Amino acid sequence: MEKRKKFMLPEADIPTQWYNITAEMENKPQPMLNPQTKEPMKAEDLFPLFAEELSRQEVNQTDAWIDIPEEVREKYKIYRPTPLVRATGLEKAIDTPAHIYFKNESVSPVGSHKLNSALPQAYYNKMDGTTNITTETGAGQWGTALAFAAKTFGLELAVYMVKISYEQKPYRRSLMQTWGAQVIASPSMSTKAGRQIITDHPNYQGSLGTAISEAIELAMQTPNCKYTLGSVLNHVALHQTIIGLEAEKQMEMAGEYPDVVIGCFGGGSNFSGITFPFLRHNMQGEKNTRFVAAEPASCPKLTRGRFQYDFGDETGYTPLIPMFTLGHKFAPANIHAGGLRYHGAGSIVSQLLKDGLVEATAIKQLETFEAGVLFAQTEGIVPAPESTHAIAAAIREAKQAKEEGKSKVILFNLSGHGLIDMSAYDQYLAGDLTNHEVTDEEISNILAQN
Amino acid sequence: MEKRKKFMLPEADIPTQWYNITAEMENKPQPMLNPQTKEPMKAEDLFPLFAEELSRQEVNQTDAWIDIPEEVREKYKIYRPTPLVRATGLEKAIDTPAHIYFKNESVSPVGSHKLNSALPQAYYNKMDGTTNITTETGAGQWGTALAFAAKTFGLELAVYMVKISYEQKPYRRSLMQTWGAQVIASPSMSTKAGRQIITDHPNYQGSLGTAISEAIELAMQTPNCKYTLGSVLNHVALHQTIIGLEAEKQMEMAGEYPDVVIGCFGGGSNFSGITFPFLRHNMQGEKNTRFVAAEPASCPKLTRGRFQYDFGDETGYTPLIPMFTLGHKFAPANIHAGGLRYHGAGSIVSQLLKDGLVEATAIKQLETFEAGVLFAQTEGIVPAPESTHAIAAAIREAKQAKEEGKSKVILFNLSGHGLIDMSAYDQYLAGDLTNHEVTDEEISNILAQN
Repeated sequence: MEKRKKFMLPEADIPTQWYNITAEMENKPQPMLNPQTKEPMKAEDLFPLFAEELSRQEVNQTDAWIDIPEEVREKYKIYRPTPLVRATGLEKAIDTPAHIYFKNESVSPVGSHKLNSALPQAYYNKMDGTTNITTETGAGQWGTALAFAAKTFGLELAVYMVKISYEQKPYRRSLMQTWGAQVIASPSMSTKAGRQIITDHPNYQGSLGTAISEAIELAMQTPNCKYTLGSVLNHVALHQTIIGLEAEKQMEMAGEYPDVVIGCFGGGSNFSGITFPFLRHNMQGEKNTRFVAAEPASCPKLTRGRFQYDFGDETGYTPLIPMFTLGHKFAPANIHAGGLRYHGAGSIVSQLLKDGLVEATAIKQLETFEAGVLFAQTEGIVPAPESTHAIAAAIREAKQAKEEGKSKVILFNLSGHGLIDMSAYDQYLAGDLTNHEVTDEEISNILAQN
Repeated sequence: MEKRKKFMLPEADIPTQWYNITAEMENKPQPMLNPQTKEPMKAEDLFPLFAEELSRQEVNQTDAWIDIPEEVREKYKIYRPTPLVRATGLEKAIDTPAHIYFKNESVSPVGSHKLNSALPQAYYNKMDGTTNITTETGAGQWGTALAFAAKTFGLELAVYMVKISYEQKPYRRSLMQTWGAQVIASPSMSTKAGRQIITDHPNYQGSLGTAISEAIELAMQTPNCKYTLGSVLNHVALHQTIIGLEAEKQMEMAGEYPDVVIGCFGGGSNFSGITFPFLRHNMQGEKNTRFVAAEPASCPKLTRGRFQYDFGDETGYTPLIPMFTLGHKFAPANIHAGGLRYHGAGSIVSQLLKDGLVEATAIKQLETFEAGVLFAQTEGIVPAPESTHAIAAAIREAKQAKEEGKSKVILFNLSGHGLIDMSAYDQYLAGDLTNHEVTDEEISNILAQN
């Protein structure tokens, strides 16, 4: 009989510091720019938008290790350390010589890795004396995480939820409301940005870019209110490194080191989290691991976008960010992996991709759901539609290992479970889902407009 | 700052044996009877219905410890040992001197404790050479667990799902289908029992009792097919004792022993699981712990039912079981805790209640949801509507401790999470939920008919 392998760390092994990869990158990410002056943004320039410590973390390119506040680390204990699992059931089903490991971030009470950054963001805002925060959410994973984090630290929260997700995922809305947050479908009539896009495109189903614009606008117009973001930004990637730091210790327990590390890719939060701590050893010349970002073929900024300065939101309220992007006006197809429907990539990952330190692959929707169902049936966990991209990429790697008759150690991040996305599985099982892929012509047109 | 307390056991501490309380009970539960002959059922008499080893476990009143097959124990490692958590957030919110602990069974990939019995039931059926199994499910917790267990051990599964749950909880249906099970809303036209009740009561929304009848009928009429049940029976209670056995070790780690142990109550599976290992020490005269079964006021078999022989299902296909019951024709109100909508109690718990070794309390729906939201906001986990009954009972105990100015150690079983029950929370938050309580007149009428 095949033995299950699950590697658990004691609570004492929850990291005490996050890893700031920018301090050790040879080519640093270019700075964010003020859209008016085109000057690099300093921490102080970000204070109106973000908590002060988060602003400092955002531009910190010198300290490789940042202390995790004890209050945050205590809250991490609700669900951390998360398990590392050898996916022996999946290995057997695809009959591969590869060893497949996954870091199981789905065990968080909100169902995903997003709580790793929601807790410190709520904490630092509370420390500043902020009373209200705003945010956007795509699939709802970030919004639910922040709803619980805001309740935990005693903040009021308003969430702009991408309209297509608001309709497809009513349970995520209920979840946010159960934790006490206000939830508004975006685009909405509550902001200038929302009214503008509804006027221009009355049936627009929303996007992360639009929801960000609305959340920023509300924060700017509300006293004692700050904005928070669940992906893309450097400080979010920083907080998420707790995933990879734990996984590093757990791979040691397993007595192996990954040949390839995989994360699904929306703005970059979970991909950064699982990869940066391992990438460190590549940069130090100790290892030669591959890092694969798995993005949807319907929103292929890494594989088919352009590296340039672009806005993080649809309206253009954010600083200019150096990123691989499809253009901030890009309206992605209504795929079920709502958390991956974002036009751009965070500046750190963009720089790493440009320098060839990480790679990317685009996967169509049906392949991801096929992978998700196989994973559910062999490992027991129904994965979030976002996470199925990482699973599909891992399966590709494992099948390649089989074809080549090679052993290979694959590690992917299971960023979240899909228990609240069952309507998507319903549609998949009924044969009602389709693939969405942007054509070359569309890509050219989009990038030309930008 | 208040420290979180979570007690984790290593995998090696997953119990190797289940605890069979009947071997140590002074007054043994009365036997199940053949409804025709009124003779006690022997193991062989149950073979047509259940796997042989399960049938033997069902009537075993001599062996206090039953070995867990290694194949089952390996699968337990997917999610076991589950955490024991000191609910410091909840304690603080109700400002109680009591210490509240909960055993977190919601971390199983199917979201509840039901997998503890689903895995051995699927395993023993597979060992018998059975190819197909049937079952019923109320809220869907048992059906999802068995769907994954059946897929794990390579069995085909048909699930009769109580119609009201089928409609209220479409995601649980999708979940079962994702794991490869057939799901049929009950009452259905696919069985004689279903057709009968649809004819008599065209708008009947179903009950566990009816669904059991349908699942048994299908099993009896299908070659190489057996029936399985997720609660009520002795072998189910046996498997669930893994909860309490782990909790016992974890309470030792915490350096405390419970004054009161609480579980919600439908047919008795999770209540038996958390309490029997602790009850053992009462029976041995070592401890004097209270054990509280929390049942819905709309289905109060323990607090207002009658102890007598009754059928386990609506139609009368099962053996006669000695139980506290509201009568097998009882049609409970459509409360959201679908898993608690069952007319009777397992024979072991019924005997223990009769002998005063355990107690019971009935709780109305609104109090349970209030407790559930408070728990979600303070501990992060949105509880299943069933589990909120245990939380509400724990809060009552904690408030009483406060009034009396006494310290008290409370342990309850968090049998499952409510992520797939968010529509119920939606209704609660919107003020659309009501209390359902059976009147004395209704109870008298029901019992008179029986």
